[in-house]
Amino acid sequence: MLPKPMGNLSDRKYAHIQLADDAQLEAGHINKLFDYEPLFSSHPSTIDLSTSFLGKTLGAPLWISSMTGGTGEARIINQNLATVAAEFGLGMALGSCRPILKSDNDFEDFNLRPILGAELPFWANLGIAQIEELIENNELESIKEMLSKLSADGLIIHINPLQEWYQPEGDAFARAPIETIKDVIAAQIPVMVKEVGQGMGPRSLKALLELPIKGLELAAFGGTNFSKLEKLRENEALSHKHSELMFVGHTALEMIDQINLLRNELGDKCLCKDIIISGGISDTLYGHWLSERCTLNNVVGRAKSY
Amino acid sequence: MLPKPMGNLSDRKYAHIQLADDAQLEAGHINKLFDYEPLFSSHPSTIDLSTSFLGKTLGAPLWISSMTGGTGEARIINQNLATVAAEFGLGMALGSCRPILKSDNDFEDFNLRPILGAELPFWANLGIAQIEELIENNELESIKEMLSKLSADGLIIHINPLQEWYQPEGDAFARAPIETIKDVIAAQIPVMVKEVGQGMGPRSLKALLELPIKGLELAAFGGTNFSKLEKLRENEALSHKHSELMFVGHTALEMIDQINLLRNELGDKCLCKDIIISGGISDTLYGHWLSERCTLNNVVGRAKSY
Amino acid sequence: MLPKPMGNLSDRKYAHIQLADDAQLEAGHINKLFDYEPLFSSHPSTIDLSTSFLGKTLGAPLWISSMTGGTGEARIINQNLATVAAEFGLGMALGSCRPILKSDNDFEDFNLRPILGAELPFWANLGIAQIEELIENNELESIKEMLSKLSADGLIIHINPLQEWYQPEGDAFARAPIETIKDVIAAQIPVMVKEVGQGMGPRSLKALLELPIKGLELAAFGGTNFSKLEKLRENEALSHKHSELMFVGHTALEMIDQINLLRNELGDKCLCKDIIISGGISDTLYGHWLSERCTLNNVVGRAKSY
Amino acid sequence: MLPKPMGNLSDRKYAHIQLADDAQLEAGHINKLFDYEPLFSSHPSTIDLSTSFLGKTLGAPLWISSMTGGTGEARIINQNLATVAAEFGLGMALGSCRPILKSDNDFEDFNLRPILGAELPFWANLGIAQIEELIENNELESIKEMLSKLSADGLIIHINPLQEWYQPEGDAFARAPIETIKDVIAAQIPVMVKEVGQGMGPRSLKALLELPIKGLELAAFGGTNFSKLEKLRENEALSHKHSELMFVGHTALEMIDQINLLRNELGDKCLCKDIIISGGISDTLYGHWLSERCTLNNVVGRAKSY
Ligand SMILES: Cc1cc2nc3c(=O)[nH]c(=O)nc-3n(C[C@H](O)[C@H](O)[C@H](O)COP(=O)(O)O)c2cc1C
Ligand SMILES: Cc1cc2nc3c(=O)[nH]c(=O)nc-3n(C[C@H](O)[C@H](O)[C@H](O)COP(=O)(O)O)c2cc1C
Ligand SMILES: Cc1cc2nc3c(=O)[nH]c(=O)nc-3n(C[C@H](O)[C@H](O)[C@H](O)COP(=O)(O)O)c2cc1C
Ligand SMILES: Cc1cc2nc3c(=O)[nH]c(=O)nc-3n(C[C@H](O)[C@H](O)[C@H](O)COP(=O)(O)O)c2cc1C
Repeated sequence: MLPKPMGNLSDRKYAHIQLADDAQLEAGHINKLFDYEPLFSSHPSTIDLSTSFLGKTLGAPLWISSMTGGTGEARIINQNLATVAAEFGLGMALGSCRPILKSDNDFEDFNLRPILGAELPFWANLGIAQIEELIENNELESIKEMLSKLSADGLIIHINPLQEWYQPEGDAFARAPIETIKDVIAAQIPVMVKEVGQGMGPRSLKALLELPIKGLELAAFGGTNFSKLEKLRENEALSHKHSELMFVGHTALEMIDQINLLRNELGDKCLCKDIIISGGISDTLYGHWLSERCTLNNVVGRAKSY
Repeated sequence: MLPKPMGNLSDRKYAHIQLADDAQLEAGHINKLFDYEPLFSSHPSTIDLSTSFLGKTLGAPLWISSMTGGTGEARIINQNLATVAAEFGLGMALGSCRPILKSDNDFEDFNLRPILGAELPFWANLGIAQIEELIENNELESIKEMLSKLSADGLIIHINPLQEWYQPEGDAFARAPIETIKDVIAAQIPVMVKEVGQGMGPRSLKALLELPIKGLELAAFGGTNFSKLEKLRENEALSHKHSELMFVGHTALEMIDQINLLRNELGDKCLCKDIIISGGISDTLYGHWLSERCTLNNVVGRAKSY
Repeated sequence: MLPKPMGNLSDRKYAHIQLADDAQLEAGHINKLFDYEPLFSSHPSTIDLSTSFLGKTLGAPLWISSMTGGTGEARIINQNLATVAAEFGLGMALGSCRPILKSDNDFEDFNLRPILGAELPFWANLGIAQIEELIENNELESIKEMLSKLSADGLIIHINPLQEWYQPEGDAFARAPIETIKDVIAAQIPVMVKEVGQGMGPRSLKALLELPIKGLELAAFGGTNFSKLEKLRENEALSHKHSELMFVGHTALEMIDQINLLRNELGDKCLCKDIIISGGISDTLYGHWLSERCTLNNVVGRAKSY
Repeated sequence: MLPKPMGNLSDRKYAHIQLADDAQLEAGHINKLFDYEPLFSSHPSTIDLSTSFLGKTLGAPLWISSMTGGTGEARIINQNLATVAAEFGLGMALGSCRPILKSDNDFEDFNLRPILGAELPFWANLGIAQIEELIENNELESIKEMLSKLSADGLIIHINPLQEWYQPEGDAFARAPIETIKDVIAAQIPVMVKEVGQGMGPRSLKALLELPIKGLELAAFGGTNFSKLEKLRENEALSHKHSELMFVGHTALEMIDQINLLRNELGDKCLCKDIIISGGISDTLYGHWLSERCTLNNVVGRAKSY
């Protein structure tokens, strides 16, 4: 038991001696991403973290990545996230908006613009398979209507062939996703593109950077993995699908280095300017380091860890 | 407990939120053998995996490696494997055919050609020690008879000096195995050569590639190890045999790199054209990667993991 | 049970046989910092470890680093440490002397000069935040008075912006620490500078070596970490402060290599001559090796492990 | 339970299927010291392992390293080892012969020549401290007498300053061991030199190779460690002796590479021709590999693991 402390200062000093044993940090745990330089500045009283992204101004370089709504609990989560985004000035994307494409029943679940306010980026989300279907049926206009009802700035298209393959009720893509994306762009819909947890290799990144898309979200390997998630859900009959496949992918670090190379290589042909760095970025310092490393304008996004 | 789901779609979405915690994949587990490029193709509706091997056509580039028959259970296993091979168009090798060399008692255990059909590769198997004995006794013709009774395409010779040494009742080789192999070739018997779980070093690989053998099976270090198996069976009196020896060997990766080098070095003198990549290939993706890496025509073989 | 030993020599020999099993050291545990050369000298009967440091002579190249006093137990610890320092001729620094800056109540807790004697280095200690405050209030003279009352050789200034930030009652620095240090130097107070467990990066080290300070203590990353300690103490309301930050820092090895480089680079402009190597130096041999590696005059310091 | 086996062959085959699961060896465990080349030779029926060492002929290139006798059990161990050495034609060294230097009481404990026979190397053993004492007292002749009583081929001198320092009753060396060794050589006593578990660094090895000693035993770091053994025995009063020191040393591999370099460097000046490779060589294959790596004539020695 601790003896009675003798007032505020002594209290703290006493705790120091008691806690010193637990406060050992082994040299091996050191974070070598940054130098520690304690001499050259005072503690800041205010910090301006605001940044320009997707043509709007954020209060901090952070992004709340797409998470599906639709059920009661998810609605509340999304509304809470929107409240936070409004307070701190963050950008936010909806999860897949499929439920409200053709029906207005669930509209309120997705109607976050009133919470967010007009000044922050707010983006809708659809999977490439749904869009393929819309194109086939000549219904691309329904996306525009949805965006306008949501007052959303544009559409994030997620491309997830591996997840769909693992998913028992998954959709097979009938066309190459890049063609589908081009059709959406041609329809004058503002577009961002992402995977959902595997990231993308260099050829895909190059193809995307060359398109006039508004942004690219990494959704890299290293965080929530939808292939693994589907594998966890799978029923007996499907359990023969090899789990090895879900480990193929690309980390955020690898994708950023690739993007930096491609940006140099492409020069003026790099039409995509804004990057959302996401996929397992649970360590804030690491996210900051990645952000500094990326030579395109960027913010850090998270889904799961909010 | 999960709240009652609200229909099919919401059901899945709801599961997503619940499972996201378990669906984290750490960046460290990433598989760096392949790039993931999700943009450029649709999901294939049919895939043609057929390949030409040992002068026949396989439905898929897979091989069922030799496993001994003879006991009741093994017979059923082998028949089941043959049924699978017939269905998917795979090549198949028998385990050691010693029991049927001189007697017809067990013939039905090995008589898989009726199940496999005529169009698939079907190979018999003998150890080098038995063949040495046949040569000594001038009985090489009995191999031809056996192949003909089995309607087998040829003979796989397994060379396992280490296993024989570990084995209490093991045979000592009286000649260098390479000489024995040459005699079998000279007798116009179609021949493949393999180890049984240690693989082979560069000198042995070179010697084999220069011979007019029909194929080479790696049976590399990294899977079922017959030296270890014999060590596990050994009785007290033999337990002084050092277990260190069983760790000497060569992995499939190492052997393939060596084969690629040798193929370049040998040019036209490389007479062996077909390779069965086997020995611990339990990860399908890794097998595929090895297969692409190998510059000789090849299929991937497994024994234990079937 | 051990059989009865047969006198002194046999006793030992017998123990050898019994203990040989436990006395195996795996090759992997070898310490590669030193060569073992058993041939060239006798066992020394006396060793002169004395060294010149901070203008005085130490009996051994060791330093007792600052640990806060103020509570009853800490007073006894400090007095015991001072007794040891006096016996072996070590240098010693007080923990933060804030309690005695403006009041004489706790003076005896810090009054170790009578125990240490006049010939050994004895240094007072204050945090940069307190000094900032003194400068603001034009009270720098109170430091001089304190040093004179303590008969201390000078003042060690600890610079710990990260700890202060983690600390609920922590002080925010209003100025860049380097400016505060310069003011103290200008006031003709003998000064040493240190961190408290993160070490410092190359820019900070360079700036310090160029100042006419009497010494520099590494207080490197790898031992007691005050950021972690404050994090351990923190209450709920503050637990959002990211623990990742505390892993940013510099090890003693890294700092010494940096100091060696800077010393070469700075030449005559390197005004600081004496280094206290500290921060997690719990292995004596490693400390000795670091000491030999450092090209500036140095001693090894410890706090926690005394 | 295993079903009743159906005779000898099937029995084994059946066991194969059952054991295959346990007989998996992961690729990571592979031993890369040797290539496995199964094609080029028959199983040898006899192997001649005989080798010339220390001017005599061994039946196998193996050496039984010094282990102290004196107590009842040790006597039996040593006699058993001598019986084995005689049977297989191995060289053998006694443990420290201090007990029989000045008294004949324990002579029979050390009297192994009658068991070994005249044709095998048989060496006595003394620590450098005892020899120092003999030289001081002008009693070097007593070594010659001892060797002659034992019919030993010469004296192995063990040099163990670190063990002596850790040992409560340990002797301090008053002279540099190399000087003591030279005196013994000058007295025309055939000499080998060794450590007892730390090995020796390059300077020591060079000095020894330049002396006309009959052999050098590595007694390298990686096996029985006498510093650790003494540390385990130590009483409270001595427990302040740092355990870090016992990790300083040199492995057999490192010493052999050094010896190979020195041999090239020294040329004709390398007067020592025979090496006993010892110190933690518990893996026979590794010992064989080290033996092939060493360019001086050598055998592999063990103490503990016999
Ligand atoms: C519960 C959950 C639901 C998600 N739903 C969607 C979705 O509907 N559409 C989409 O593009 N991504 C979706 N994602 C993926 C995330 O937006 C993000 O790309 C991915 O989780 C990687 O980020 P993280 O590691 O920070 O979770 C979802 C993620 C989670 C955890
Ligand atoms: C139960 C069992 C029996 C085997 N019997 C034979 C045999 O009779 N002849 C042979 O050449 N190889 C035999 N093998 C070896 C395999 O053909 C193959 O070379 C080896 O197991 C490595 O492949 P794996 O790692 O996929 O098991 C046998 C393997 C197993 C597991
Ligand atoms: C209980 C305790 C109290 C300390 N108090 C102070 C202090 O008041 N001022 C200071 O400059 N450093 C203080 N330190 C830091 C040490 O002087 C030293 O820089 C740090 O502990 C690293 O050395 P170590 O790894 O040997 O503990 C304290 C350390 C401990 C363990
Ligand atoms: C029980 C025991 C007693 C030993 N006694 C001696 C000795 O008296 N003299 C000596 O030179 N070395 C002695 N040694 C050391 C060994 O000869 C050898 O140098 C050392 O053990 C390293 O070999 P190892 O790893 O095979 O045990 C002894 C070793 C053991 C295990």
